[in-house]
Amino acid sequence: MKLSSTGLVWDDTGSASGPALRALGLVDTVLRGVGQVMLQNNSYAGLLFLIGVFYNSTLFGIGVLVGTLSSTLTARLLGAERAQIRDGLFGCNGALVAVGILYFLHPGVLTWACVIVAAACSSVLMAAMLNMMRVWKLPVLTAPFVFTTLCVFLATARFGRLQSTELLPSAGLPHDATVEGFVTGSTLVHGLFSGVAQVFFQASPVTGALFLAGLLVSSRLGFVAAMAGSLIGAMVAWGMGAAEAAIYSGAFGFNSVLTAIALASVFLRPSTASLAYAGLATMVTPLAYAAVSALLEPVGMPAMTLPFVLVVWVFVLAIPLFPRLKSA
Amino acid sequence: MKLSSTGLVWDDTGSASGPALRALGLVDTVLRGVGQVMLQNNSYAGLLFLIGVFYNSTLFGIGVLVGTLSSTLTARLLGAERAQIRDGLFGCNGALVAVGILYFLHPGVLTWACVIVAAACSSVLMAAMLNMMRVWKLPVLTAPFVFTTLCVFLATARFGRLQSTELLPSAGLPHDATVEGFVTGSTLVHGLFSGVAQVFFQASPVTGALFLAGLLVSSRLGFVAAMAGSLIGAMVAWGMGAAEAAIYSGAFGFNSVLTAIALASVFLRPSTASLAYAGLATMVTPLAYAAVSALLEPVGMPAMTLPFVLVVWVFVLAIPLFPRLKSA
Amino acid sequence: MKLSSTGLVWDDTGSASGPALRALGLVDTVLRGVGQVMLQNNSYAGLLFLIGVFYNSTLFGIGVLVGTLSSTLTARLLGAERAQIRDGLFGCNGALVAVGILYFLHPGVLTWACVIVAAACSSVLMAAMLNMMRVWKLPVLTAPFVFTTLCVFLATARFGRLQSTELLPSAGLPHDATVEGFVTGSTLVHGLFSGVAQVFFQASPVTGALFLAGLLVSSRLGFVAAMAGSLIGAMVAWGMGAAEAAIYSGAFGFNSVLTAIALASVFLRPSTASLAYAGLATMVTPLAYAAVSALLEPVGMPAMTLPFVLVVWVFVLAIPLFPRLKSA
Repeated sequence: MKLSSTGLVWDDTGSASGPALRALGLVDTVLRGVGQVMLQNNSYAGLLFLIGVFYNSTLFGIGVLVGTLSSTLTARLLGAERAQIRDGLFGCNGALVAVGILYFLHPGVLTWACVIVAAACSSVLMAAMLNMMRVWKLPVLTAPFVFTTLCVFLATARFGRLQSTELLPSAGLPHDATVEGFVTGSTLVHGLFSGVAQVFFQASPVTGALFLAGLLVSSRLGFVAAMAGSLIGAMVAWGMGAAEAAIYSGAFGFNSVLTAIALASVFLRPSTASLAYAGLATMVTPLAYAAVSALLEPVGMPAMTLPFVLVVWVFVLAIPLFPRLKSA
Repeated sequence: MKLSSTGLVWDDTGSASGPALRALGLVDTVLRGVGQVMLQNNSYAGLLFLIGVFYNSTLFGIGVLVGTLSSTLTARLLGAERAQIRDGLFGCNGALVAVGILYFLHPGVLTWACVIVAAACSSVLMAAMLNMMRVWKLPVLTAPFVFTTLCVFLATARFGRLQSTELLPSAGLPHDATVEGFVTGSTLVHGLFSGVAQVFFQASPVTGALFLAGLLVSSRLGFVAAMAGSLIGAMVAWGMGAAEAAIYSGAFGFNSVLTAIALASVFLRPSTASLAYAGLATMVTPLAYAAVSALLEPVGMPAMTLPFVLVVWVFVLAIPLFPRLKSA
Repeated sequence: MKLSSTGLVWDDTGSASGPALRALGLVDTVLRGVGQVMLQNNSYAGLLFLIGVFYNSTLFGIGVLVGTLSSTLTARLLGAERAQIRDGLFGCNGALVAVGILYFLHPGVLTWACVIVAAACSSVLMAAMLNMMRVWKLPVLTAPFVFTTLCVFLATARFGRLQSTELLPSAGLPHDATVEGFVTGSTLVHGLFSGVAQVFFQASPVTGALFLAGLLVSSRLGFVAAMAGSLIGAMVAWGMGAAEAAIYSGAFGFNSVLTAIALASVFLRPSTASLAYAGLATMVTPLAYAAVSALLEPVGMPAMTLPFVLVVWVFVLAIPLFPRLKSA
């Protein structure tokens, strides 16, 4: 174990010496897990994200810790590859599963049990998808989080003791939208920061700013991509006539933030062509968000980060056929 | 052709001699097909399952025979691998397609034609999925049955001559459940046996007991897994606040029965770790059942064995990444 | 560049000489793209299809040209393989995306912008799916068109400035159909030709006849398959009790037309077995159409060519396991 520029410690050998170092290693792993929610394998970024969540809500902050621990320890218990665990790949889904469940279900003993079990299951799903996706060398992203929580939320329709909050959309039939509200500069600024915060289901622009600080610590390109992504998401939604309230809340931002980070700073080597490609993907993401959220309306489910996952899968899958673009 | 401990005869060479032996071979293949519905490549098990179905309903018993024959003969006609046909891999989907269609559609000439054609198509889908899944060495399970019958049931909304029975759920929008009814010991015992019977859409606990006898003949571990699976399914559903009537009917049992058999006795080498893993999968299955059945509510479709298929796919896909678990 | 029996010119080397020849090359590529909508890599066929569309509607004709150009140029800009671009593989999805959007959305500046961007995106999705499907050597078919347009249509539920026409189905809950109307010979004849025309969302039997002429120029087997496919689709729908109006309009024909062309004249080497196999697939396609259209009813989406894509994927995936059938 040694010091690392991207975190507290870094375990090369997989064997930590002494309980203090082992504990520090676990803390580092958990923080990297939180960081990976925005694709940052960096525990300082994870720490700032965690502070951002705690700033907005102690409940969600504790949830993030519990969820990340549950999914990380499950992966370790089942003997998953240490390097992947240390990179936080198993942690990030647990973190999101926890916040998602605490956001959409009333807290209680059964809900907390669901958080722990669902976070554990997200690690099994992560392993399954890592195996499935390696055929195409595709990243799994936060797909395990999305499918695990959708499963829990859908189950509220059959299980009387799982109580959803009023935040879970109620099932309905989608119909043509009309332009609602009037978008101003304040809508866009609030949407810009809230869009970043919404990655962790947080509605506070201050939390968004803390997340951006975390990105800045880890990757300048990631920071710029996140800002640009959130703004592009809000602008496209505005241009297409989305409801002002949705733009204000950052609903059209968080998936674009993630798409922009992924394509502009993680999966593609920077170039003019790759910038244009990442820009197209980011512009398309609000449309994918609108489509997925309409598709899930008859079952009353939120889109969460599924639009980001789908768009990035498509745009990464296509890279090998476009020689102008180079994988990072 | 020679005697076999798992069936009437076993054809090593693929060339049967004499019409009597050939007929016996076909009977054996059909019975193995029925046995494979619960993952038993054993014609005695298949025979007991068939007796169980006939005990509850002659119509369904004949359906099982017709469906298994149709899918088996289609596979043979198209030249599928003899060993896979003999193992009943093509038969089991035909068996389930037939019972499913006869359960949810009013019997009549067109319905019987649907049974035969849909069972034949399930063999094409089986071959397609065998090809698709071998990339990951994943078992196809009863997915072809699920997709084929969903297709037929969905088509009732466009075809006036396909008449569904009142057993097919009507389309609706899912909403939060409340706890309904009071679960007693008799609920759990009835649910335990009916859960096993529901694998073939049968509601009778006696049929469930006959199915368990078939499992006992074929695999003691499979028998224990089925019992435990059905009980775990009912208990988890009870704990989560599912409706008493649904637990009583075995609705939360049959998918758990299959998950437990698959993971505890077929796809994993027995060990403490694999037992815990199979246990987690079995506990998660009622949740998956609740989720899938809510997801299908807006189109008025039953979940059938789709939850089992999805859970086992995820848990089997993840095995190679968890070195503590050994594939069987 | 040299003359070609299947088109105006054929570029062997990938380097065209002179602006006039290059322009001719682009025209040829665009026409092949239009031809590939019915799986014909033949620019004369594409020309006749284009004439057929223009005969029915100038708007749609211009749309086809704009869409094909957008998706073709995007593929070229991103550096996709020249041979695949020249074969029209990228063009056909753009052509259909354009007609689809112009059919279901009110024309306007934003709609035309959607046509261009969505057609461009269909090329990214095409590349992604080409990469994904080569694991199984499966053709992508018109899947990118289907998913791209579904995304745009679903987004109308969130974006107030995307206005759907009254042709887009409104969301509803599917329920049991009853037999409506009385099918006569004229229903079947009109359905036969309209079924071919509906491949491009055109309702005119004359357009259907022009499409058939295009097929005849390119492939006699394809021509016969299209006629037979449209008729089989209408007959099966009639036999199952579909509404007369739907059969008359060709709704049950266009997917069967494409399935028949694909399996009888493109992906299988002709033989008695493969003819029977293609026949089964064609008969099953109206059922798949009914199922997909019912499945999409709660979100108010049209099935488009998704049933054809799914049926052909299944039947092509299964070929390697059926040695009686030979891939073309």
